[in-house]
Amino acid sequence: MITYPTPTAIASSPIQEQIQVAMQAVESAMHEAVNSEVQVLRDASRHILGAGGKRIRPRILMLTYLALGGTDMTYAAAPAAAVELMHTASVVHDDINDHGVLRRGRPSVNAIWGRTFALLTGDFLFTAVYQLMAPYRDLNKLLARAATALVEGETLQADAVKNNIFTREVYARIIALKTAALFQAAGEIGARLAHATEEQAEALSQYSYNVGLAFQIIDDILDITGDESKLGKTAGIDLQQGRGFGAVKDDKNGAAPDDPIESIKRKILKGNRLQEARDQAAALVDMAIAMLDVLPENEAKNELVQIARLVVDRDY
Amino acid sequence: MITYPTPTAIASSPIQEQIQVAMQAVESAMHEAVNSEVQVLRDASRHILGAGGKRIRPRILMLTYLALGGTDMTYAAAPAAAVELMHTASVVHDDINDHGVLRRGRPSVNAIWGRTFALLTGDFLFTAVYQLMAPYRDLNKLLARAATALVEGETLQADAVKNNIFTREVYARIIALKTAALFQAAGEIGARLAHATEEQAEALSQYSYNVGLAFQIIDDILDITGDESKLGKTAGIDLQQGRGFGAVKDDKNGAAPDDPIESIKRKILKGNRLQEARDQAAALVDMAIAMLDVLPENEAKNELVQIARLVVDRDY
Repeated sequence: MITYPTPTAIASSPIQEQIQVAMQAVESAMHEAVNSEVQVLRDASRHILGAGGKRIRPRILMLTYLALGGTDMTYAAAPAAAVELMHTASVVHDDINDHGVLRRGRPSVNAIWGRTFALLTGDFLFTAVYQLMAPYRDLNKLLARAATALVEGETLQADAVKNNIFTREVYARIIALKTAALFQAAGEIGARLAHATEEQAEALSQYSYNVGLAFQIIDDILDITGDESKLGKTAGIDLQQGRGFGAVKDDKNGAAPDDPIESIKRKILKGNRLQEARDQAAALVDMAIAMLDVLPENEAKNELVQIARLVVDRDY
Repeated sequence: MITYPTPTAIASSPIQEQIQVAMQAVESAMHEAVNSEVQVLRDASRHILGAGGKRIRPRILMLTYLALGGTDMTYAAAPAAAVELMHTASVVHDDINDHGVLRRGRPSVNAIWGRTFALLTGDFLFTAVYQLMAPYRDLNKLLARAATALVEGETLQADAVKNNIFTREVYARIIALKTAALFQAAGEIGARLAHATEEQAEALSQYSYNVGLAFQIIDDILDITGDESKLGKTAGIDLQQGRGFGAVKDDKNGAAPDDPIESIKRKILKGNRLQEARDQAAALVDMAIAMLDVLPENEAKNELVQIARLVVDRDY
């Protein structure tokens, strides 16, 4: 099974060393950005950042930067940190709306500090994004657009749940807005920081957008197949047996999760659609990888290929 | 009684006509910025914007711009709209945390659309701020810093309420962060948009900061004296009689509002302190007006003097 590299494993080649340096710079930038004098904001922000996460968005940004010859890790790390903090802000606010008590294996900010401080911590992370990006002039336009898209996507999702209009078309629109737009900004910002040509910037924008769509589709599949374990079955077995998720749908009353979003994801991705969704994610990743042809051959490009493949070939 | 100019009253002199044009441009910029394709975000944003408000922050920005010879209203209107939307975002989130059901005489976003959509509408307004400001390069630094300060101030306030550490020093720090910082950004952004000298920009920054402090002090006094009417007394009579707010403090159990923030403001501003606070606000306004000496003599400068005076001489 392919897993994301861990710090102890990655210092094995020059590119892995570069990535390690890059991602360490991102962590430093994030921690510095949330170093508020207001203790609860600092503590709550550090709590959610300290819980880790895949850091896939800043990793893509740093890799598109490296792949185009960028060398100033500190310069690129601040926008990469901003992208991750934008995602983190939305996660903190999500946990308020969804009453989430666990996040990344830790109690959510909401669970520890309560709703008021979780709301303010999310707001604070938004403003930290803004502060980090402020010196980056026109690149602000890219992240601002993605930030609006993210909130619009979250809102469409909440609206779809409330009004029970969760069609596949609505689902496609939601994931484009709430996930793919921020991935897209990450890839394009990394490219533009490294003075990409318009063609390269556009291609890396498309690469990241498609990786983002695939990432969210797989995330939703994992959410659902993860729930299956509650039914005493493992997802892997169901999938190996070709039953996909369809086997579960009729057990709805017996074992459906009480989260309406989960239940709706089940409807969207039921039956053959689970395999269709996997196929779609795989196709998106293939398209993404094809976009990388604009890049010179180098190790960072290979890493971008690898990340895209990992997105569909992961179990967490 | 002096009141804020109304559209029908202000077209009486060239500067009033300019201000009317300027503030209309701000309204247009705000409405365009919230014109999301996601209906609930558009509706909720328009609802809160349509409820009006004093628009004092964008007015200060437009006036510092005009006072320094700025002429492109559309160019200055977008940052002014961003400043007002930043304030509006915080208001929408405030109403979630305080369970506010009325805002500017209308039901709050929270009351109409519920907590989830109010949270997302506030987030959306933040991102609209970001989008409006993105083309304004280094001015983003000013608004980003103010945005962080605003959230820090709101957090300190919530923390002070929770832990009952609402001293005058804490109060001073809260109003500096949650209110004065955004006023300050407004004045300085207007100045810099008009290519102010460093001395002018700094002076207008200080002007706006002090006006912001005075504005918040008076706002808190009005909140409290407004409550007095519930006790069957009018604030004006109490103040004329020199009793200030001290007369109320012993009636606490009988008629105290259930909002902990209101109750705490009462503690801070009780007794002689009400008059002290009024005096302090008046002194801040005097200092603010003195800062305007850096400006050439013109009608916009006179309007800035007038706004500062209105801040302490108002009843709403």
